[in-house]
Amino acid sequence: MRAVGVVVEYNPFHNGHYYHIQESRKVTEADLVIAVMSGNFLQRGEPALVSKWARTKMALEGGADLVIELPYVFATQKAEIFAFGAVALLHALGVDSICFGSESGEIRSFRNTLEEMKGRKETFDVLIKQALEQGKSYPRAASDAFHSLKLADSAVDLSQPNNILGFHYVEAIDKLNSTIQPFTIKRTKAHYHDQHFADQHIASATSIRTNLFSEKTNLEEIQNVIPETTYSHLLSYKKSFEMFHHWENYFAYFKYRLLSSTPEELRQIYEVEEGLENRLLQHITSAETFKEFMEQIKTKRYTWTRLQRVCTHILTNTSKLLMKENSEQPTYIRLLGTTLVGQDYLNGIKKNVAIPIVSKLSAFSNEQINLDIKASNVYASCLNEPYRSMLIKQEFSNPPIRYDQNNKQFL
Amino acid sequence: MRAVGVVVEYNPFHNGHYYHIQESRKVTEADLVIAVMSGNFLQRGEPALVSKWARTKMALEGGADLVIELPYVFATQKAEIFAFGAVALLHALGVDSICFGSESGEIRSFRNTLEEMKGRKETFDVLIKQALEQGKSYPRAASDAFHSLKLADSAVDLSQPNNILGFHYVEAIDKLNSTIQPFTIKRTKAHYHDQHFADQHIASATSIRTNLFSEKTNLEEIQNVIPETTYSHLLSYKKSFEMFHHWENYFAYFKYRLLSSTPEELRQIYEVEEGLENRLLQHITSAETFKEFMEQIKTKRYTWTRLQRVCTHILTNTSKLLMKENSEQPTYIRLLGTTLVGQDYLNGIKKNVAIPIVSKLSAFSNEQINLDIKASNVYASCLNEPYRSMLIKQEFSNPPIRYDQNNKQFL
Repeated sequence: MRAVGVVVEYNPFHNGHYYHIQESRKVTEADLVIAVMSGNFLQRGEPALVSKWARTKMALEGGADLVIELPYVFATQKAEIFAFGAVALLHALGVDSICFGSESGEIRSFRNTLEEMKGRKETFDVLIKQALEQGKSYPRAASDAFHSLKLADSAVDLSQPNNILGFHYVEAIDKLNSTIQPFTIKRTKAHYHDQHFADQHIASATSIRTNLFSEKTNLEEIQNVIPETTYSHLLSYKKSFEMFHHWENYFAYFKYRLLSSTPEELRQIYEVEEGLENRLLQHITSAETFKEFMEQIKTKRYTWTRLQRVCTHILTNTSKLLMKENSEQPTYIRLLGTTLVGQDYLNGIKKNVAIPIVSKLSAFSNEQINLDIKASNVYASCLNEPYRSMLIKQEFSNPPIRYDQNNKQFL
Repeated sequence: MRAVGVVVEYNPFHNGHYYHIQESRKVTEADLVIAVMSGNFLQRGEPALVSKWARTKMALEGGADLVIELPYVFATQKAEIFAFGAVALLHALGVDSICFGSESGEIRSFRNTLEEMKGRKETFDVLIKQALEQGKSYPRAASDAFHSLKLADSAVDLSQPNNILGFHYVEAIDKLNSTIQPFTIKRTKAHYHDQHFADQHIASATSIRTNLFSEKTNLEEIQNVIPETTYSHLLSYKKSFEMFHHWENYFAYFKYRLLSSTPEELRQIYEVEEGLENRLLQHITSAETFKEFMEQIKTKRYTWTRLQRVCTHILTNTSKLLMKENSEQPTYIRLLGTTLVGQDYLNGIKKNVAIPIVSKLSAFSNEQINLDIKASNVYASCLNEPYRSMLIKQEFSNPPIRYDQNNKQFL
C-alpha cells in the first residue's frame, strides 16, 4: 500500500484541508493518507479550538486514514523542529511521500533551494545572527538573510510561511536520509493569515476561528467553508464541554502561574531568554486579558508567535532541560485514530516500525510522552467541572478512534 | 505607654475577639493593643475569608491599635513556629505583655508546664517519635506523649488547641529571653471547632464561616455574633470583590498546579514528605472539589489541617528550601494599620526597633516578604478581573490603614 503523509493542525478541519487530502491522494497516487497532527497545543503557541479527539474525528471523516499525534516537544516549536518531528514520524511509519501546501507550488524550487543552501549554510547563519543583533525578529532575520544570499531565480521565496514549512520538510527528509518523495500543492484560495473569508467555500482556519470567537459569530458563514462533519463535531464539542478553547480561557491560570513563580524559576522555562522573565513579571500584574498582556510585552525583537510559545511553555511548566533532552527524535507513535484502511496498513508495517506504537497511554511511559500528558492536563484546566475531569480522563482511557470509511461511521 | 500583644487571625473578627481585646487591655492595664495577625493564608492552611486589609479594618474598629502582619513563613505553620514568629514580632515591638485565650485560663499552669517540660524534653521527643512511628498524627502523638509524662496536676492540658498555642507563646517568650509578661483569659462561650452557634452573642469564627458558606446563609444569626463594623466590612467586601474566599475557589488552580508538576517538583514543596506527592497525584485527576480531594487523601497519619497546609504550600509554590532559610526569625514588621494611639506608640519606639518597619512594599524587599507577596498574588487569583488585578495592586499601593479611634473614622 502506498501511503502519503500530511502534516496538519486541523484547527478546525475545513474545506481547504479536505481539498489538500484529496489532492495529496491524487498527485501521489497513494492508497492512504497518514496525518501527523499537533495535539492540544499548536505551533503558534496556542490551545487548539477543540481537543485532539474531536479534531481526529474531523480528520477521519475528512479523508485521513491514520491520525498520529505530533508530540508537544515538536508541535510547539519553530518551523525547523516542528517539521523535523513530523517528518521523522512519517519516516518511521514508512510513508512513500509527503504532500504539503505552499505558496510556491513547485517542488523543484524547494529542492533547488535546499541544494543551494547546503553550500551556504555558514553564510546564512552569520547573516541571521547579524540581523538578530540588530534587533530583528527571527523570521524577519531569516527572511532578510535568505534574500541577501541572492539564490537563483528557481529558489523558493522563504518569506512565505508555508514555503518555510515546506522547505523544512524537504530538509528533514534529507537529514533523515529518507526515501520519502516530497510533493507540493499550490495554495491559492486563502492565505494563511487571512482574517476574513476570502472565497465562498474556502477560508483559512484563522478566519474561521476569528468568526467563532467574535461577538457576532456567523454560523452560516462558517458552515459554507467547513465540511458538515466538522460543523457537527464543533457543535457537539461545545455542547459537551460548554467551551471552545482560547488563550483567554487560560489567562487566569497563566497569571496565577507567573505570579507564583520567581524570576529564577521562570528562567528554567523553555524559550525564556535574555531577561524576558522580568518583562513578563513587570506586565502581568495589571493585565486583565491575555491580549492586553501580549500587547504590553510585544517588541520588534519577538514575534507574536514566539511570545505565545513562551507563554504556552510557562503555562505547561515546560523546562529548557526537558525540551532539550526530548526533542532530538520522536520516541513513540501515538495513534489517535484510524480508518479500516489505516488499520490494515498498520498491521502490515508494525513489525518494521522502530519505535513503539502507543494505542493506550497506560501501556507506555517516557519523558517525551509525559510532556504530552501534562499538556493535555493543562489543556483541560480551563473547563469547569465535571468537564475538566472528563477531558483529563479521556486522555488516559480513550482508545484510538476507529472509523469505517465505507459505511461512514465510527466503530 | 504600656502595650499588650495579641496573636490573631480574625477570620472574621467577632464578638469573642472584641471581648478578648477588652479583657486583654483590662487585665494587663495596657494603654494600647498590638495585634499580630495572619495575612491572607491562615494557620489551618486555608485562605482567609476576606483580605488582610478588610480584616485590619475590622481589628482597628474592634479595639486594636496596631495591626502587624504575621509573615507567611510563620502564619501557615504548626503551633510552635506560628507562636514563635508572632511572639518574636511582639518582642521586637517592645510589648510589655501578651494575652491569649485558653481552655485553661490559668497562666501559672502554663509556666509550670514549661518548667516541668524543660527537664523532660528528650523523653517527650522520644515518646512523640514512637507514637508517629505507630502511624499517629502529630497532634495525637504530642497529646499522648504529654499525657505519658504524667506531669503535676498543675500542668495545663495540652490536648486542647488553645492551650497548645498558649504553651508555645510562653515557650517562645522563654526562648527569646524576653521580659514580656504572659496573661491568659479563659475561653468559655464558644469552643474553637464549634460548628453551630453556641450562644446568642458569642460564636466561634468557624461557625460563622460555616454559616456564611452554607446554602442557607443566615445573616441575622451572623449579625448577632459579630460587631456591626465587621458586618458592614463583610458586606462591602462581597460587594467589591463578588466573593468570600474559600478553598473551593482555589481548587481549579490547585488542580492545575498539581497536574502540571512532576513528582520531583512536588517533593521540593514544603511539608510534602514521605511520598505524599504520589498520593496527591493519584487522587487529583478525578477529584471535582477540594473537599472530595481532601477526603480521598486523608489518612490517620495526617490531620486535615496538616494536609490543608501542604495544599496551601503547593498552591503558593513554596519550597522547603525557602521556608527553611526564612523561618528562623521575622526580618521585618509589616504594618497593616494603626489608630492614632498606635501611631504615637510607633513614633516613640521606632528608633529602638531592631528590624525594619515596612509601611510600603515598594520600599523594602527580601526573601521572607517576597513569600508574603506571592501568597497575596495567589490569594487574589480566584477573583475575576478586574477584581484580581485590583487586589494584587492593593498589596503594593495600600499604605497602612489609619483609624481615628476617638471619632471612629478611617483617615
